[in-house]
Amino acid sequence: MFDLQNIRKQFPILSQKINGKDLVYLDNAATSQKPVPVLDSWQKYYTETNANVHRGIHTLSQIATEEMELSRQKVQKFINAKNHFEVIFTKGTTEGLNLIAYSLTNWIKAGDEIIISHLEHHSNIVPWQMLCERTGAKLKVIPMDENGTLQLDYLDDNLSEKTKIVSVNQVSNALGIVNPIEQIIAKTRANSNAFIVIDGAQSVPHQKIDVQKMDCDFFVFSGHKMYAPMGTGILYGKEEVLKKIQPFHGGGEMIATCTFEKTTYADLPFKFEAGTPNVGGNIALGAAIDFMENIGQQNIQNHENALLDYAQKKLLEIDGLKIYGEKAVRTGVVSFNLEGVGISSDVGMILDKLGIAVRTGHHCTQPIMNFFNIAGTVRASFAVYNTFEEIDILADGVRKAQRMLS
Amino acid sequence: MFDLQNIRKQFPILSQKINGKDLVYLDNAATSQKPVPVLDSWQKYYTETNANVHRGIHTLSQIATEEMELSRQKVQKFINAKNHFEVIFTKGTTEGLNLIAYSLTNWIKAGDEIIISHLEHHSNIVPWQMLCERTGAKLKVIPMDENGTLQLDYLDDNLSEKTKIVSVNQVSNALGIVNPIEQIIAKTRANSNAFIVIDGAQSVPHQKIDVQKMDCDFFVFSGHKMYAPMGTGILYGKEEVLKKIQPFHGGGEMIATCTFEKTTYADLPFKFEAGTPNVGGNIALGAAIDFMENIGQQNIQNHENALLDYAQKKLLEIDGLKIYGEKAVRTGVVSFNLEGVGISSDVGMILDKLGIAVRTGHHCTQPIMNFFNIAGTVRASFAVYNTFEEIDILADGVRKAQRMLS
Repeated sequence: MFDLQNIRKQFPILSQKINGKDLVYLDNAATSQKPVPVLDSWQKYYTETNANVHRGIHTLSQIATEEMELSRQKVQKFINAKNHFEVIFTKGTTEGLNLIAYSLTNWIKAGDEIIISHLEHHSNIVPWQMLCERTGAKLKVIPMDENGTLQLDYLDDNLSEKTKIVSVNQVSNALGIVNPIEQIIAKTRANSNAFIVIDGAQSVPHQKIDVQKMDCDFFVFSGHKMYAPMGTGILYGKEEVLKKIQPFHGGGEMIATCTFEKTTYADLPFKFEAGTPNVGGNIALGAAIDFMENIGQQNIQNHENALLDYAQKKLLEIDGLKIYGEKAVRTGVVSFNLEGVGISSDVGMILDKLGIAVRTGHHCTQPIMNFFNIAGTVRASFAVYNTFEEIDILADGVRKAQRMLS
Repeated sequence: MFDLQNIRKQFPILSQKINGKDLVYLDNAATSQKPVPVLDSWQKYYTETNANVHRGIHTLSQIATEEMELSRQKVQKFINAKNHFEVIFTKGTTEGLNLIAYSLTNWIKAGDEIIISHLEHHSNIVPWQMLCERTGAKLKVIPMDENGTLQLDYLDDNLSEKTKIVSVNQVSNALGIVNPIEQIIAKTRANSNAFIVIDGAQSVPHQKIDVQKMDCDFFVFSGHKMYAPMGTGILYGKEEVLKKIQPFHGGGEMIATCTFEKTTYADLPFKFEAGTPNVGGNIALGAAIDFMENIGQQNIQNHENALLDYAQKKLLEIDGLKIYGEKAVRTGVVSFNLEGVGISSDVGMILDKLGIAVRTGHHCTQPIMNFFNIAGTVRASFAVYNTFEEIDILADGVRKAQRMLS
């Protein structure tokens, strides 16, 4: 039974007043709020069992290690990875993508090709541009149409043995569009030997993930968008892929033997986890998974899709409001502008005065903004604790902004 | 006035029982415990103001940004950096060192030389070995003698225009030896144009840092060894150095403009802070600085040095106990073995049964262990909350281990 009021009670921040109004937090695609069980697990770790992991044989260190490894197993089940050692703790999606780009450097040579899509966040563009600079490879981009739909014909014409990496997001952060990654992966497997990277930052909070069924080589996401603290994230990689690529950070825990002449690397997952991990954060990430699974991921998805449908309906009743990707399959996000109101941040500021937190601007996706020839959009994004009443407040706020700005 | 009992009250974990005994936590060089004001600042952040920073114009995002930037300024003052934008938030020392090694790649060519010391942690060895592999540069090592003293004559013979990087730790994690970085920096500046990197992971908790006086190019440390949460750390870099080197991670916040054809990078510090930062952790790092400054860094140093002197005296009363680096200037750490007891972990396990947490093994410094021809040591390491009574308990425990194992 989906009990929204009970869920909301677990998020103390939702009782905050902003500019004298009840907070309406609709900036979840930037970062979600954190429920009490997640905050408590972190606090409990630091008040009862904090120690460095793996390296110590004393009791606290053993307990800390066991708790962090239990969290790794929770992540394994959460995304249905075959092995727990295919789950690497990172500090977030951006680190995960950069790790892959650095660790694949030796596999890429001048003239090779890397394919991304027009719908990517800067974090899934710039690491590949930097890799191209290092190697002389070429960056290619799957185009999209006015609806925000990726044009997969491009893959038929451009996939080849020169394609070494295909990296796309499962859900666009700027528009919420759900990309056809099943087809992208199938076409890539059929026509190249490319490494397939899926950016799951915006999908993991909203839908069930199965990396084995997906058949990607890498899958990356952040903890902080799925109710866990900032500074946490996951890189999933297939065992055979993680084994053959270079490590990223050198340091403690990632070596088997170290002399000044020669260093050999540790087994998975430690090969990619140099240095002291964010133990408290990683344990809290496990608590966030428990939180989501206790509610039920299908229940979360149903509620968020209903919020999105309702938001779209209410917003489209406003004259001159344009939703980007209106006709596309979407999740979690509605991104819009008001006709005649040039600057999305003006709308955002008026909404803020009403206690409504939305994000405005380019959402770290300047190429999408350039495509639509706009500087930015107003983006409202949803989490499990949002209500239909909050959508009403948003729609009323947008109307007010429209009156004030036109 | 230095009030040890009042300090201890701020660390709830110190009341834990381990194997039925009062916890004696002497594994502070691995990670320190966290005081209530640090835990509270994190908790307050997530229950009152959590939002993503920089990118949002709504109130919570503005407050989160201001709080994190306030913490950056605290770090600036704490290490006496000239500018706040020379302070880069990382996830820890290991990331800081790897960031530097990656970002300097374009400055290094085959035949160049990188000088480190024999007293380094793996995190200040392996990133440079990987850089040498990428570029064809050569790794050179300042030797040490039986006392753990670095042989600076080596620099006179080996510094040259081929030297591109000199990277040493200020304090050895394995032995606690305080290295003569003033002389190392002076010799390096006089005889080369090398970038100078100082690993401050083990010095920052124990002594006042002044990066301007030190005149290093980079200074890195971790939050979690100085009373802040894991997943936090700092890279300090001189403005002109940070400006001329390559960025590390590509992604959000670190770009000025992004198109598929060309991306330009943001100003400092954002050029090196791609992706969502660990806002809660970074704010808590500021609270940890407040905690240390409220006690007084000189008071902390005096207390810890007194603990070290007392521990050395008490331990040396035990027949057949050898302290590594006994005659060297040290801080925070005493590292030892018992004659006739081959395996340090056996000692550690007996101490653990008595509630005493020490670290045993190679401490991520295999070259130091190889030098002394040992597999590992028993390492006791101190923080501000440790007591002289705890040292007595340690010494009694070591005697007991000696009886049981010989």
